[in-house]
Amino acid sequence: MAPLGDKSDSAEDAAVSQVENSSISNILIVIAMQTEALPVVNKFQLTEHPHQAFPPGVPWVRYHGTYKDLQINVVWPGKDLSLGVDSVGTISASLVTYASVQALKPDLIINAGTAGGFKAKGAGIGDVFLASDVAFHDRRIPIPVFDLYGVGLRQACSTPNLLKELNLKIGKLSTGDSLDMCPHDEASITANDATIKDMEGAAVAYVADIFKVPTIFVKAVTDIVDGEKPTAEEFLQNLAAVTAALDQSVTRVIDFINGKSLCEL
Amino acid sequence: MAPLGDKSDSAEDAAVSQVENSSISNILIVIAMQTEALPVVNKFQLTEHPHQAFPPGVPWVRYHGTYKDLQINVVWPGKDLSLGVDSVGTISASLVTYASVQALKPDLIINAGTAGGFKAKGAGIGDVFLASDVAFHDRRIPIPVFDLYGVGLRQACSTPNLLKELNLKIGKLSTGDSLDMCPHDEASITANDATIKDMEGAAVAYVADIFKVPTIFVKAVTDIVDGEKPTAEEFLQNLAAVTAALDQSVTRVIDFINGKSLCEL
Repeated sequence: MAPLGDKSDSAEDAAVSQVENSSISNILIVIAMQTEALPVVNKFQLTEHPHQAFPPGVPWVRYHGTYKDLQINVVWPGKDLSLGVDSVGTISASLVTYASVQALKPDLIINAGTAGGFKAKGAGIGDVFLASDVAFHDRRIPIPVFDLYGVGLRQACSTPNLLKELNLKIGKLSTGDSLDMCPHDEASITANDATIKDMEGAAVAYVADIFKVPTIFVKAVTDIVDGEKPTAEEFLQNLAAVTAALDQSVTRVIDFINGKSLCEL
Repeated sequence: MAPLGDKSDSAEDAAVSQVENSSISNILIVIAMQTEALPVVNKFQLTEHPHQAFPPGVPWVRYHGTYKDLQINVVWPGKDLSLGVDSVGTISASLVTYASVQALKPDLIINAGTAGGFKAKGAGIGDVFLASDVAFHDRRIPIPVFDLYGVGLRQACSTPNLLKELNLKIGKLSTGDSLDMCPHDEASITANDATIKDMEGAAVAYVADIFKVPTIFVKAVTDIVDGEKPTAEEFLQNLAAVTAALDQSVTRVIDFINGKSLCEL
């Protein structure tokens, strides 16, 4: 096992406290799809960075720039090397988050993207949510403690002021690698008490938690999971419009974060 | 998009051909659980390497040593930092494979571990399989091309001589993050024509494929998925004994590989 460092607890506490009280300066925005990422790239006039943060051969994409007092990196896993579609899902998201955290040492991660929403829990098309916590719904391991590992519940960075100021909705996010929802997934999503459902959030949270990088989740609803329309059709139909709403919310979140410390969020 | 390098195709082909014809010297063995890994570590008298291949903070474990003409690294994702159980499943496996490939530049990956087997396809407890190909069974994305991305079918490194010499069974491997099997997973496993089922193989294959590292999958059957006994109970009951069979097969595979090139396998 790798040691967690040789600092004493009090030294570590002091370091954590210092980070929490200094202004956030380096933000990593992790996105799943190019369609979701490009409006953010354009809004902040980011450029593809000539100094590669990633090793040769990977399809991962990084755009970088300065906005107000912030260094902003937007990364996404890019197009699958064989099939050409966006590399969605938990594995690609965890890999690109890991490589980005290692290379860029962000103060804060924002996982932004689209999600399915449950109307029974108050979600509507175009709503933008902050996730209070995230968990998996398709990792069933019915052995004591392994069951909890499979669910992988993690809390988002607490942002009461951001939530209040921006008047965003808040709800629990459940993550799985399927766009649809089979009955077993549905039971786990209910157990997770989720209002929104995506394909990356809990994987980003898993990696962020290993390296103790605070993370917030900004998710815009493209389709109603417990509605009448088939998910894939509704998702594709609303993707462009909802991405605009997502982009607007991410901009407001970034504007709010600028000049603040973690404990002011 | 990161460029794939500036070599011409013919230079790249020549490089690939050279790799295929030189003796394999550097093997990375990726395992999921400590219980599966330790017999291999002991058999080859490997030691935990003082020079960390991994960043501080991760629970990932690396043991290293020389056996005959081979450098052998055994890695596993270690114990979950919060819960203390083995970090099983696709996300941890992909992360530790990625970090190991970056740090250790292996010639060949062996993903070794336990698996469920289907008796209807000829699997029995304690059988050791080489996987011919691997795919996911819990990533359903019903949008054209994304559906294929979700399944993520990849072929193992072709090893006809190894298979013949060691008299191992061969079958298709299907990977998912659940130990159990819900009806939707079962339908996908059937579509994948799988004889064995694990929780890591296709994730290791995904990362290995990005970096073009040939990979073989050695999987020992701990439980019969289409049998009478509950999977978790049967898995735990047979884990120790089947791990011994796995260890023996991995040793025979390593002995066979020693002194050979990829195209002699």
